[in-house]
Amino acid sequence: MNFVNVFDLSAALPSDKETFERLAEGEGLDIERIVSTGQKTPEGEWYDQKRDEWVVLLQGEATLSFRDGTELNMCAGDSLFIPAHQRHRVEHTSKDPPCIWIAVHATMKPC
Amino acid sequence: MNFVNVFDLSAALPSDKETFERLAEGEGLDIERIVSTGQKTPEGEWYDQKRDEWVVLLQGEATLSFRDGTELNMCAGDSLFIPAHQRHRVEHTSKDPPCIWIAVHATMKPC
Repeated sequence: MNFVNVFDLSAALPSDKETFERLAEGEGLDIERIVSTGQKTPEGEWYDQKRDEWVVLLQGEATLSFRDGTELNMCAGDSLFIPAHQRHRVEHTSKDPPCIWIAVHATMKPC
Repeated sequence: MNFVNVFDLSAALPSDKETFERLAEGEGLDIERIVSTGQKTPEGEWYDQKRDEWVVLLQGEATLSFRDGTELNMCAGDSLFIPAHQRHRVEHTSKDPPCIWIAVHATMKPC
């Protein structure tokens, strides 16, 4: 039985980098946990992903921005559907507490 | 932008039934939020699912059982990979606080 507590940071911290851990995978599908401790997307860079992403922030606070100028402040529990190729950046992640994200990457649509 | 706070129970409560809300879907893929308020699988019944399931309990406490007699007590953050056709039952879900689950149903394997 494959059992993980997603709030358990013992394997992810301390770290000065974001930690990515794949939890499950299928054809064209990944479920991962991301732990951020203050990191942000380097200046001038954008995420431009081939697959859609459904992401939830389970702990911490973060700010995302989008190419159209929208900024989104996220707190614990906030989830978001990011379509493929919707360019976005992570402008801020809290260090204390660390940000814990669960992300599902696949071809999909929001409901 | 499709935006949901998974801890927001205003749409799910009060309810005497489990609440299932699909958050995103793809070919052979569903991401859903489940809110349980004390419900359990009816006596003598088992879940026997065609697809694999990755599920995380984000709030509350719950007990699952499996055909081999294993019982699993889950608390906030516990996640689990349940292979297709692994028969299981929900023996207990806390009512206060309600159980909030995120489940991903797809063909996949744990990492």
